[in-house]
Amino acid sequence: MSITLAEVANFVGCEVIGDGSTKLTGVAGIKEAREGELTFVSNPGYEKYVADTSASAVVVSRSYAAGSHNCSTSLLVADDPYDAFARAMVLFAPEGDVVSEGVHPSAVVAQSATLGERVRIGANVVVMNDVTIGDGAAIHAGSFLGTSAVLGQDVTIYPNVTIRNRCVLGDRVVVHSGTVIGSDGFGFALSARSHTKVPQIGNVVIEDDVEIGTNVCVDRATLGSTRICRGSKIDNLVQVAHNVVIGEGSIVVAQAGISGSTRIGKGVILAGQAGIVGHIEIGDGAMVAAQAGVTKSVPSGERVSGYPARKHSAAKRLYAFVEHLPKLVEKVRGLESRISQLESVSERGGAAGTAGGGRTEDGRECPDEEI
Amino acid sequence: MSITLAEVANFVGCEVIGDGSTKLTGVAGIKEAREGELTFVSNPGYEKYVADTSASAVVVSRSYAAGSHNCSTSLLVADDPYDAFARAMVLFAPEGDVVSEGVHPSAVVAQSATLGERVRIGANVVVMNDVTIGDGAAIHAGSFLGTSAVLGQDVTIYPNVTIRNRCVLGDRVVVHSGTVIGSDGFGFALSARSHTKVPQIGNVVIEDDVEIGTNVCVDRATLGSTRICRGSKIDNLVQVAHNVVIGEGSIVVAQAGISGSTRIGKGVILAGQAGIVGHIEIGDGAMVAAQAGVTKSVPSGERVSGYPARKHSAAKRLYAFVEHLPKLVEKVRGLESRISQLESVSERGGAAGTAGGGRTEDGRECPDEEI
Amino acid sequence: MSITLAEVANFVGCEVIGDGSTKLTGVAGIKEAREGELTFVSNPGYEKYVADTSASAVVVSRSYAAGSHNCSTSLLVADDPYDAFARAMVLFAPEGDVVSEGVHPSAVVAQSATLGERVRIGANVVVMNDVTIGDGAAIHAGSFLGTSAVLGQDVTIYPNVTIRNRCVLGDRVVVHSGTVIGSDGFGFALSARSHTKVPQIGNVVIEDDVEIGTNVCVDRATLGSTRICRGSKIDNLVQVAHNVVIGEGSIVVAQAGISGSTRIGKGVILAGQAGIVGHIEIGDGAMVAAQAGVTKSVPSGERVSGYPARKHSAAKRLYAFVEHLPKLVEKVRGLESRISQLESVSERGGAAGTAGGGRTEDGRECPDEEI
Repeated sequence: MSITLAEVANFVGCEVIGDGSTKLTGVAGIKEAREGELTFVSNPGYEKYVADTSASAVVVSRSYAAGSHNCSTSLLVADDPYDAFARAMVLFAPEGDVVSEGVHPSAVVAQSATLGERVRIGANVVVMNDVTIGDGAAIHAGSFLGTSAVLGQDVTIYPNVTIRNRCVLGDRVVVHSGTVIGSDGFGFALSARSHTKVPQIGNVVIEDDVEIGTNVCVDRATLGSTRICRGSKIDNLVQVAHNVVIGEGSIVVAQAGISGSTRIGKGVILAGQAGIVGHIEIGDGAMVAAQAGVTKSVPSGERVSGYPARKHSAAKRLYAFVEHLPKLVEKVRGLESRISQLESVSERGGAAGTAGGGRTEDGRECPDEEI
Repeated sequence: MSITLAEVANFVGCEVIGDGSTKLTGVAGIKEAREGELTFVSNPGYEKYVADTSASAVVVSRSYAAGSHNCSTSLLVADDPYDAFARAMVLFAPEGDVVSEGVHPSAVVAQSATLGERVRIGANVVVMNDVTIGDGAAIHAGSFLGTSAVLGQDVTIYPNVTIRNRCVLGDRVVVHSGTVIGSDGFGFALSARSHTKVPQIGNVVIEDDVEIGTNVCVDRATLGSTRICRGSKIDNLVQVAHNVVIGEGSIVVAQAGISGSTRIGKGVILAGQAGIVGHIEIGDGAMVAAQAGVTKSVPSGERVSGYPARKHSAAKRLYAFVEHLPKLVEKVRGLESRISQLESVSERGGAAGTAGGGRTEDGRECPDEEI
Repeated sequence: MSITLAEVANFVGCEVIGDGSTKLTGVAGIKEAREGELTFVSNPGYEKYVADTSASAVVVSRSYAAGSHNCSTSLLVADDPYDAFARAMVLFAPEGDVVSEGVHPSAVVAQSATLGERVRIGANVVVMNDVTIGDGAAIHAGSFLGTSAVLGQDVTIYPNVTIRNRCVLGDRVVVHSGTVIGSDGFGFALSARSHTKVPQIGNVVIEDDVEIGTNVCVDRATLGSTRICRGSKIDNLVQVAHNVVIGEGSIVVAQAGISGSTRIGKGVILAGQAGIVGHIEIGDGAMVAAQAGVTKSVPSGERVSGYPARKHSAAKRLYAFVEHLPKLVEKVRGLESRISQLESVSERGGAAGTAGGGRTEDGRECPDEEI
């Protein structure tokens, strides 16, 4: 497969400097790229590699393009080179796992299910009663759609996903393999005798343009809905407990966990392995550092880290104090010996007037000659 | 669907104050509930909402009911309002994912498998040789039951679960989607040249009334059994390594991990993301805080937190000391300048006899006038 | 099933002391073993149990065998008793989940797939276009092999595994249930408006003799390959992000996470729940302690712990300082009162010659002129 630089420029909406008829066959990083490949520089620190790259074209920033360079390679000029490159990559992506249009003969689809146009249902998929699937959705092999689940248009469900009953997915939602949406929340009335199950009769709502990684768990609400709002992106192995709400455009990195009923604001970033207790709020635009343990609500825009999590600047300051502990101990020892010195001087001074006797520094009485 | 308040009261064993013929169609929280719905108050802080709720009935405590209230809503009086409400919820639960009685034609069930009465086997389920399934068990779509696995009565295996060979599940065990029971423990004889696999030839035993969340891993024992005892509840994404034993009625919250051969007592609570090293014991009734890293055995009834985990009260105290470090440093600085002051006084006193000169506190020699 | 001690000795390459015709029917630990069973002692602390074991044979070290013991049990003498025992266990392992040779009639295998000799494909397996499967490979029930995936010889894919398109697995690779290999890396160009997906068009390469646990995620590279090198062993619930490279013979314990583009060296050990940031290097032979949060590169051979992770010896030392904080505070208080004492002496002393005046210990001015 090959495509011209001019076609790429047209597709991503960039200007060409150089030969628009250059043929491109693939994409690669600036250091790895070979002839026929498209690459990019976004970080100014990498611009030095442009001169020597074997790539046939490079996506660069306007400021780089405005400079004068001894550069024989064709350039694509973009406001955001990485974004333009990312969009161009689509043109070179090898074919992935494709589900053919229609229902694979091995799939088990309930008669009461409603399938939109151009729906693709893979091998061994199970679609239960009263499921609704929007136009253009693709359900890959081995996935399960529970009773009365609703999937929007152009949804992609990768292989071996489980969507339980009554869960609702918006348009263009993507769910990766092994993920389970709508399992029971972890609700038990604990007692010494036995723990009584609290029925989890709510559901999960995933809004438009959300993408969810692999082996993620999003539990259904006890009552009402667990909700992931429009445009949020969830990485692998994340735990989203019952009744959690994640606001629009938030990012939850791998292995983070959010406990029940906590509300995550818009544009929040939870870094990897962070843990958030239940029933709190993480304000819009807040950032939670990797491995942080958040035990109380976080105001909008705040950045927190550590366990228990606190404002990142305060956590760093405190951490610096801890790091200097050995020095502090040494200093205190120095002060102690200076005090002892002063005490011995003071005692000697006093001895002149008080005729003998005294106390050692730790208060034991002692004869004169010991001082 | 609608049901009368008197019927609910009869089902959960509570007393009605008000109109037993009130028709109820659903359940909701005290603030969200609308006409026709049942709600509850358990936390006294929420009792103020009872007067204004739109709910048609509220489950309340005996003490609340004993007070005098301007409350037009019908009441259900319970010893434990949340528990009663939780049990009542079952009456209003919408139909979930149901597996029809019998074996779905797409399921692959070995001839040597033994199926109890009223067993339900969903689409694309695979049942290997010599499996035994108890009366009333439901195996949802896409699940796998390995060779010689034994499942008790009324077990529920949700979609896409994997139960490996020779594992044993008691009565009423519930396993949620994506969970794997009986995979090989992580056993290798490490060496610089190559790591030799230690065969994992034990199994997993899950006793009666255990519930296990989604995407959990319970590894088979090297020899003998990994065991989760009666009535324990395991949340999502938990790791239970080979030869671990979890005592009766324990709770393991999401993303916690228990290393090999560790024994968890009865009624223990491991909070989210806690990690427990191998070959130790967590005593009955102990509590391990979220994200704690437990490196040695914990006595019965003790509550531990932090990394490395220690008694929670001690951890909190130590943490308070750390928090006050900036103040301590300031104090030490204050002491240092007072000592310098004293030293300068002392030197001047000494100067009378020694004729001048001296050292500053950091030991540099300096002329008299600087002192 | 029964086998003689001589046969076991021959299989594992050990010497027999005692009766080679002893019949063995199983294996167990030294304390649990009964007549007819083989056991072992590796830890010298357990050698005392040999005299009283009911086992019919014990694998022991050369040094133990060289001593004189009142021991009626037959012995197998090995350089590494645990390793020899582990290899012997294979002889006694009950039959596991076996896939019959050939393709199960319920499996869906693309015509363009290439299957080696003696391949075993279980029930409901889905094999997409252009997949290549090496001789002797076993694909258990419900697993998915994506378009153009390549599996080496004698690979074992346990039930309900997902291998996505174009991923490559070497010979003898083992993948346990629920694991997903080759899902999209978590790549988005973040912006306030919306997050743009960066296509993930690379793949995953798993080299020979790697074993991967359950519910693991190994994401495909953005460009190029995420790679797990020869002989590495990955435990359950581990996250391996896009473009990560794990060197030969490394060990990654349960619930650890490795962020994008990080390079793990050879023979590295990442303990449970450890987290590694992206774009760093962990040198050959390094060890990362459980729950450590590694924020910068780690030199070869170094052992790190804590958050942020530092050299383990330094982390321990620092931790000891923290633990002694209460004592330090007490000491500072003691110094303070000694200083106050000295100040009061000094004031009195000064008064003799200078006629009074001074500051109280906290610096407030006091009547007479300052000293």
